[in-house]
Amino acid sequence: MKAAKWYGVRDIRIKEVEEPMIQSGMVKIRVKWCGICGTDLHEYLAGPIFLPTQPHPLTGEEVPVILGHEFSGIVTEIGDGVTRVKVGDKVTVEPIFACGMCKACKAGTYNVCEQLGFLGLAGGGGGFSEFVTVNEEMVHILPDHMTYEQGALVEPTAVAVHAVRESALKAGDSCVVFGAGPIGLLIIQAAVSAGASKIIAVEISEERQKLAINIGAHFVINPIKENVIEAVNELTNGGADVCFEVTGVDVCLNDAIECAKTRGQVLIVSIWEKESSISPNSLVLKERQLKGILGYRNVFPMTIRLIAEGRLPVEEVITEKIVLQNIIEGGFEELIKNKNHIKILVSPT
Amino acid sequence: MKAAKWYGVRDIRIKEVEEPMIQSGMVKIRVKWCGICGTDLHEYLAGPIFLPTQPHPLTGEEVPVILGHEFSGIVTEIGDGVTRVKVGDKVTVEPIFACGMCKACKAGTYNVCEQLGFLGLAGGGGGFSEFVTVNEEMVHILPDHMTYEQGALVEPTAVAVHAVRESALKAGDSCVVFGAGPIGLLIIQAAVSAGASKIIAVEISEERQKLAINIGAHFVINPIKENVIEAVNELTNGGADVCFEVTGVDVCLNDAIECAKTRGQVLIVSIWEKESSISPNSLVLKERQLKGILGYRNVFPMTIRLIAEGRLPVEEVITEKIVLQNIIEGGFEELIKNKNHIKILVSPT
Repeated sequence: MKAAKWYGVRDIRIKEVEEPMIQSGMVKIRVKWCGICGTDLHEYLAGPIFLPTQPHPLTGEEVPVILGHEFSGIVTEIGDGVTRVKVGDKVTVEPIFACGMCKACKAGTYNVCEQLGFLGLAGGGGGFSEFVTVNEEMVHILPDHMTYEQGALVEPTAVAVHAVRESALKAGDSCVVFGAGPIGLLIIQAAVSAGASKIIAVEISEERQKLAINIGAHFVINPIKENVIEAVNELTNGGADVCFEVTGVDVCLNDAIECAKTRGQVLIVSIWEKESSISPNSLVLKERQLKGILGYRNVFPMTIRLIAEGRLPVEEVITEKIVLQNIIEGGFEELIKNKNHIKILVSPT
Repeated sequence: MKAAKWYGVRDIRIKEVEEPMIQSGMVKIRVKWCGICGTDLHEYLAGPIFLPTQPHPLTGEEVPVILGHEFSGIVTEIGDGVTRVKVGDKVTVEPIFACGMCKACKAGTYNVCEQLGFLGLAGGGGGFSEFVTVNEEMVHILPDHMTYEQGALVEPTAVAVHAVRESALKAGDSCVVFGAGPIGLLIIQAAVSAGASKIIAVEISEERQKLAINIGAHFVINPIKENVIEAVNELTNGGADVCFEVTGVDVCLNDAIECAKTRGQVLIVSIWEKESSISPNSLVLKERQLKGILGYRNVFPMTIRLIAEGRLPVEEVITEKIVLQNIIEGGFEELIKNKNHIKILVSPT
């Protein structure tokens, strides 16, 4: 079968690889759609970041590995002992490998496992290939009326749902989302579903601004044209209850802190490439809180439910659908060149 | 009467000033002891920081103002309408001026009032003088068996009690206190009283290390001699539940973040003079939390109770007692020169 593998910076190759074999306790899935994630793009431009350059403790694999961790598909085969999933099921995969043994895992917080790895980054196959074989427990069955496109969006949406659930946001609260890329837009949707009454997106791109408004933001601020802190202060009468930092950019983190109300909260959802200079006094004098979050845990079922119930119109973030052979030019390079793109889905077949 | 007033950097003068008049709703106190706070020292060395250089909105005063906000005394006179306090009462004063009108005040969080001021910094008189006249509501009556020395320590102890109460610390938890100065030492005591089972102090001074152990720390780490992160990881088996940053020093803030366990918390209790470079990924990849806190609110009564019950042996941080006339050489300059000092109390009479 064909699969997209990472070999180096700007060096992803479509290779002929062996189809993964079914094994006891495992489920074989024919991939329908797989999204290109910001993380994949980071690896393409500046990797290896999460990619293993020596055998990953949980997969035993190292680069080159197959990419793709946001995917949906149909079950084509099940191994011995698989009881919850059957051939023909429409599914998505929670692509986390966790050791199950460390303190974090034993506390149920497997997303911060000491040996954490993601399928499609750390080995174990990936969604940018025709077939993936995974442990049954990683498989989540989708309702019939959900599309495969929606199914491929469950994973990034789970990040957004985790971010909002881990925040202090309550119904009626205000929030600011810094960066209306895929995760920022999905956080806007998740904030809507959680009852936020004033959602402000901070975004430079006009296309993304429009999309932010379309999917539920009440205001957008263009940081090039407006003073973000003043604008948020005015819109919220003195600061937002919660700010979500989804850019990984220094100035946005500092703006997010200043835009939070007294005793307000800033969630850092982005992955950072370097240190950042902040003002500790901005936290101290206003008793603000800064909280990092990573990925998701235990939220795939509710994320699927929210999408299935129509409360998260996630398909609106899809801006292109391509085939695997076109993943470089029509996928990675297109995402770099054209900032109007949000989510590009790839079909491996 | 005599009072110590701030005129400029390293320019505090003992001046003859008018005794404050009693007024309706107010209480006149003869000061017994007043501690020199780290904030006073900051103002002496690098002020004005909190000192008002234009009329403070709540006091109408500007520099030169009388210093001193950690004091105890005896009530000598009460104004019309004062009912809770009587002449002869042994008291301490919660030296916060808050507007009562802003969102923070209305939420009961008067310590982050938009116009916040401290008596002894923002005007309203101060403890480094013979008499202070304050609103009745700022007065807290001390039990008979508490000493005036203990009474002068209620204010800094309230900072420590607020810090521990605002943290996630629970009985049985581990914590690290960065900096065993007055507030750090009092946080160690407050952590003991809250049931912390493993308290680690990070401190360079040997005298302070000894004191930290004497008042309840289980371990001390000298950051000059040991790798703090490795030592804490070993002592706590992978990271402390809560870290208290009480130094205002860049490297300590970063160490505090790295010493917190996965999903652990760092409280910033110190006031900062500049920005600090942190690694946002250290928060994100371990889902850690950074929280600023300021002063105290609503904790004077319980702080007094904890001291009165003998659960916070705060008098152990007193290293010197001097008279007002000696406040420069025997007080401020001594604190700068001799780092073995923790708390110096000043008697204005």
